[in-house]
Amino acid sequence: MDAGMMSAKTAQPAFDLAGWSQHHLDRVEQALGHWVGEDAPARLGEAMRYAVLDGGKRLRPLLVLAAYEAVQNGAGDMDREVASRAGMDEAALRAGMDEAALRAACAVELIHAYSLVHDDMPCMDNDVLRRGKPTVHVQFGEAQALLAGDGLQAFAFELLTPEDERILPAVQATLCRQLARAAGSAGMAGGQAIDLASVGLALTQDQLRNMHRLKTGALLQASVMMGVACGVSTAAAQKALADYGAALGLAFQVVDDILDVVADSATLGKTAGKDAASDKPTYVSLLGLAPAQAHAQELLAQAHDALAASGLADTRALAALADMVVNRSY
Amino acid sequence: MDAGMMSAKTAQPAFDLAGWSQHHLDRVEQALGHWVGEDAPARLGEAMRYAVLDGGKRLRPLLVLAAYEAVQNGAGDMDREVASRAGMDEAALRAGMDEAALRAACAVELIHAYSLVHDDMPCMDNDVLRRGKPTVHVQFGEAQALLAGDGLQAFAFELLTPEDERILPAVQATLCRQLARAAGSAGMAGGQAIDLASVGLALTQDQLRNMHRLKTGALLQASVMMGVACGVSTAAAQKALADYGAALGLAFQVVDDILDVVADSATLGKTAGKDAASDKPTYVSLLGLAPAQAHAQELLAQAHDALAASGLADTRALAALADMVVNRSY
Repeated sequence: MDAGMMSAKTAQPAFDLAGWSQHHLDRVEQALGHWVGEDAPARLGEAMRYAVLDGGKRLRPLLVLAAYEAVQNGAGDMDREVASRAGMDEAALRAGMDEAALRAACAVELIHAYSLVHDDMPCMDNDVLRRGKPTVHVQFGEAQALLAGDGLQAFAFELLTPEDERILPAVQATLCRQLARAAGSAGMAGGQAIDLASVGLALTQDQLRNMHRLKTGALLQASVMMGVACGVSTAAAQKALADYGAALGLAFQVVDDILDVVADSATLGKTAGKDAASDKPTYVSLLGLAPAQAHAQELLAQAHDALAASGLADTRALAALADMVVNRSY
Repeated sequence: MDAGMMSAKTAQPAFDLAGWSQHHLDRVEQALGHWVGEDAPARLGEAMRYAVLDGGKRLRPLLVLAAYEAVQNGAGDMDREVASRAGMDEAALRAGMDEAALRAACAVELIHAYSLVHDDMPCMDNDVLRRGKPTVHVQFGEAQALLAGDGLQAFAFELLTPEDERILPAVQATLCRQLARAAGSAGMAGGQAIDLASVGLALTQDQLRNMHRLKTGALLQASVMMGVACGVSTAAAQKALADYGAALGLAFQVVDDILDVVADSATLGKTAGKDAASDKPTYVSLLGLAPAQAHAQELLAQAHDALAASGLADTRALAALADMVVNRSY
């Protein structure tokens, strides 16, 4: 079953992903530009802004916002119930939810950006090019790069916990919990440690999947679930979107491995062919190119199936983002 | 006015700091040993545990717990009011507060430990000895040290946000907010950036104070205020304990600068004389040794004054910790 068939099966009207993305990207860029590095002294703020602004596909923020919109569409009755329990009027609650989702979108991007800064450092991947620009440690020195990454991680949690009464404390705490787990040793940092320890080893597909589930998948899935947490949803919808996030997260990495082989550095905006050169296990080295491409399509189908099972009225943005992840060329 | 006079002035019965500390240190060590690195793969968990366990004075956890106890003593009526508002019985609320304080104590220590791991790396201070042991990057390699630090920071926020209904979401969110601000670019990471940029420069006392207020003071003050946030307190007590934390935080750094000059490496458990050797501005280089010592005593007096102004019934642990910070020999 291919992605095209699944899209037909979910039978939703055509969706303008480019327009939808541009609207939300503008909001995210503006918010990041406003918030990041604002009160950082010396050159730290400059390094933090360099690491975050004007670059990146912003896939994680878009997943947060798409998931938030998917659960908000038609959640009117639940909204009213939550607002009444929290002693707020519904408009304030909705404004607080919107604000929480924007903050969550920016926070996951800060975690992603910090991980790239630290990954690129000489003691890790020693990369000098990222998104077509010199990496942070090349531009600002290693010490500033280390601090900028550290500062970005802390700032992600600061963004999630504003003194804003419209954002329920339970939402703030849940978002911090989700992001901390996805970023830490049972998530992204843990996956990177496995990655470090796996160079030159022959991994099984299970081991490779586990590494990527932590290294890349955890934060992508958390992006979806943080969007969910900002809104109001049923347990069934939460379960379905968790499945969607897991499939999407894995598909992302399979496609990354494929692009490392088939794309060139100029298109990728980073050094191509690095995995093979550094003898890293990948889906392509393990399965071969064509089976890896077929596996990506299978995972895409799983993502679409999960959306169909969610019971949510409009999941077109999530569906389109999954298509984009698998069919991207960079 | 010296510390002895201040202690007399507050007129509280003698306090067994050693016994009090040992009781709480046992709890903190046990909790850290239970929690840290538990679910971290590869050698990451080992590096995280190495960085955190069996070492350090644990000043920050003790400040959290002392501040928490100070506000809890005699807060019975307020406890009942909060419990009633939260729809919990008072025993569950108190158990949740105790658990939150222990988690906060461990979380600030994780942030402190991560900052030491990253500080010691070759691109920062390039230190090979910490608490009498090889530093993390010497023991595990730079890449693992970088990841261990990153993982410890994330885990601090995970510890603060358990799925434990006894700990009010508002408390969880407040603790994350306080810790993120203290750790990030407007706190510890920002202070380190100023420190990096200040080597070889002639700072004024205001500039030096600002650097240390961020670099060390913010997390020490946050330790106090996180303890406060776990309990129930008046606005006046909160203001007084914030003043106590600010004075203590600055005193800590003044004494650190003094010890770098007067102590030897074996006593310190780290390399002595580094500040002068690396041409870093310090309170001793700026004021001279004797005036720096006098300044530490002034700050201690301010800390005691703040406790006296707090209106709290028993602040002996906080008072004794301040005395210890200023009169320590390592």
